Amino acid sequence: MNYIFSDRIISLQPSAIREILKATSDPSVISFAAGNPAPEAFPIEDVRRITAEILENSPIAALQYSITEGYPALRTALSDMLKKRYDIGNENDGLLVVSGAQQGIDLATRCLLNEGDTVICEAPSFIGSLNCFRSYRANLVGVDMDEDGINLEKLEDALKANPKARFIYLIPNFQNPSGITMSWEKRKAVYALAKQYSVLIIEDNPYGDLRFSGEHIPAIKTLDTENLVVYCGSFSKILSPGMRVGFVCAHNDVLAKMTVAKQCNDVHTTILSQMICHKFITECDLDAHIAKLQAIYRGKCKLMLDHIDTDFHPAVAYTKPEGGLFIWCTLPQGSDMMNFCRIAAQNKVAVVPGSAFTTDDEVETTSFRLNFSTPTDDKIAQGCTILGKLTRELF
Amino acid sequence: MNYIFSDRIISLQPSAIREILKATSDPSVISFAAGNPAPEAFPIEDVRRITAEILENSPIAALQYSITEGYPALRTALSDMLKKRYDIGNENDGLLVVSGAQQGIDLATRCLLNEGDTVICEAPSFIGSLNCFRSYRANLVGVDMDEDGINLEKLEDALKANPKARFIYLIPNFQNPSGITMSWEKRKAVYALAKQYSVLIIEDNPYGDLRFSGEHIPAIKTLDTENLVVYCGSFSKILSPGMRVGFVCAHNDVLAKMTVAKQCNDVHTTILSQMICHKFITECDLDAHIAKLQAIYRGKCKLMLDHIDTDFHPAVAYTKPEGGLFIWCTLPQGSDMMNFCRIAAQNKVAVVPGSAFTTDDEVETTSFRLNFSTPTDDKIAQGCTILGKLTRELF
Repeated sequence: MNYIFSDRIISLQPSAIREILKATSDPSVISFAAGNPAPEAFPIEDVRRITAEILENSPIAALQYSITEGYPALRTALSDMLKKRYDIGNENDGLLVVSGAQQGIDLATRCLLNEGDTVICEAPSFIGSLNCFRSYRANLVGVDMDEDGINLEKLEDALKANPKARFIYLIPNFQNPSGITMSWEKRKAVYALAKQYSVLIIEDNPYGDLRFSGEHIPAIKTLDTENLVVYCGSFSKILSPGMRVGFVCAHNDVLAKMTVAKQCNDVHTTILSQMICHKFITECDLDAHIAKLQAIYRGKCKLMLDHIDTDFHPAVAYTKPEGGLFIWCTLPQGSDMMNFCRIAAQNKVAVVPGSAFTTDDEVETTSFRLNFSTPTDDKIAQGCTILGKLTRELF
Repeated sequence: MNYIFSDRIISLQPSAIREILKATSDPSVISFAAGNPAPEAFPIEDVRRITAEILENSPIAALQYSITEGYPALRTALSDMLKKRYDIGNENDGLLVVSGAQQGIDLATRCLLNEGDTVICEAPSFIGSLNCFRSYRANLVGVDMDEDGINLEKLEDALKANPKARFIYLIPNFQNPSGITMSWEKRKAVYALAKQYSVLIIEDNPYGDLRFSGEHIPAIKTLDTENLVVYCGSFSKILSPGMRVGFVCAHNDVLAKMTVAKQCNDVHTTILSQMICHKFITECDLDAHIAKLQAIYRGKCKLMLDHIDTDFHPAVAYTKPEGGLFIWCTLPQGSDMMNFCRIAAQNKVAVVPGSAFTTDDEVETTSFRLNFSTPTDDKIAQGCTILGKLTRELF
């Protein structure tokens, strides 16, 4: 059989990150390529106790079909938490539980974008979202970033040049892959532009709680008097990515359409996972747990930054994130970055080539992404020594 | 904000079934409208024990990110089981774990269908799949069914009339909503037509293990020498729908594209659910469990059929399923079926109007669907008495 595949899927390549994840199953490879939480970050005892309680007290509810919108108790608890902790959500907003923030982004795109419509995003940006937009045959327009987030002049140029832009996709906190955080002034300016050009914003905030230095900056969603922001959050980085629970806070009209799309897609999110998340945020000490995570990632990030500082050739630039999971390194202009990543892999260190995150295949990049959350401290040291040696040999 | 929604979502209405599910949260309503497993069908003790073991022995694996293709041990066990129990899967086939069979159908459609391409399906058919196809702007072509499955002459007419037909969607066992099972002769004939017209088949088999009378009929997939069949199975009816675990067995080329689509959609299926399914099929007595389920549904179906026989007006026709969850009732021609369903709901019995399952909104139907798996035996008796009285008053 000669299969005929849809236009939307035929040009799409497997995610380089996930392909690398598979390749790095070789235990002798030091992987700086993943984006996994640190194993020591999982609240294993809490999950054991909570899960046993659920299966003891509510086994039928945990195993039976549930409603598409999400487990009602979780939706209520999440709405309260978002409002109290982060001032997110107004009277016209609702909450939809999704199977990870990725599904939130996918369903939003499914509901908002026709083929050929424009998505404006930071350049570089998260490969999972970029591939999702591509799979809806979006016209992807990347806007360069400054140290404090997306460049405002170029964003306005993109909005002017693309009247069929449907939304701006942003990761304001500790962006993947760059590690950059958007300043409060810039968040306000971006929101004003979205309002001026009547374009929605998809605000993707998987890492927001993982701030380990600097001051908390409110989400763009807190400014959302016009109901322009579709806010995507996740339990993946604070509890467990394997559970696949995320959430979307947006205007009820948008969520109604996304709910219909979710009915067609996976009916509802795993109910046992939702019940675990509910008990976790209502019964456990969330503040203490998040503080523990922040301490873990603060230490790992500092360790990697210190090693980069001492081990890497001084011509290699790198970001100093205030949170999240990633550091973005940039080789001197004209370097053969892909060759560097290949040689690194041959030397048993996996990094993600920056080209995985570009919105435009034609754009050359000399950057690559390092993850500090997954490897042990020893591996961080060993891997940086190997990479550092390579940077010194190559330049 | 005046939201602009995508063409694919704008015309789609919420699934009537799921809306009714929400409406029937009123505990005084007897619901024959759902499609839930019987509460007594869940192997609660097994799930408790298995889950505790997983969280004791492999907590990190159960909480961490996993690969898109699915938990490797589950994929191996499922491939073995499909081959040994059902003779499904050949050397070119692989297995993809999905978040319920609905996601399998959604991802297959995403990969195989361009806007305007044709999907041929049984008429009536499962609303969740029909809405999924509509959300990809498929040209839906319904083919009438006989007592032994889809009408072959009309199927060939549809294939001739629609050269852009990409696949035929079929539920051969105890079809939802009709309860009809496709005969072995017809399965062979349908496969021959698919081969002749170079069209794929999506074979949806959520209920296959729930046969409580008659002889097992092999899946169309067992005939698949040409790799034309994308076979979708599920743990929803034999273990738990709340876990959201299904699987797709198809040619590796098709699965490779579906895996890329799944990366964009939800990254991977809940890993704890997958680990529970793995232990369930490898460590528990699956034959004994399935025999128990069959006994439960045999009893419930017989009870409902007996009541229909004695309580309903003799002019009401109904199917006698050999398995599954549903009975399809048809009022005499010219009856106002929607009015009947409305009056039934006012009398506190919820049924699903047949119009929810039609492929063509213009086609009139006097049928409605009854579910016998979810209500208790008492509710089956009470509900049928109420419905029976209505049929006698109305005709």
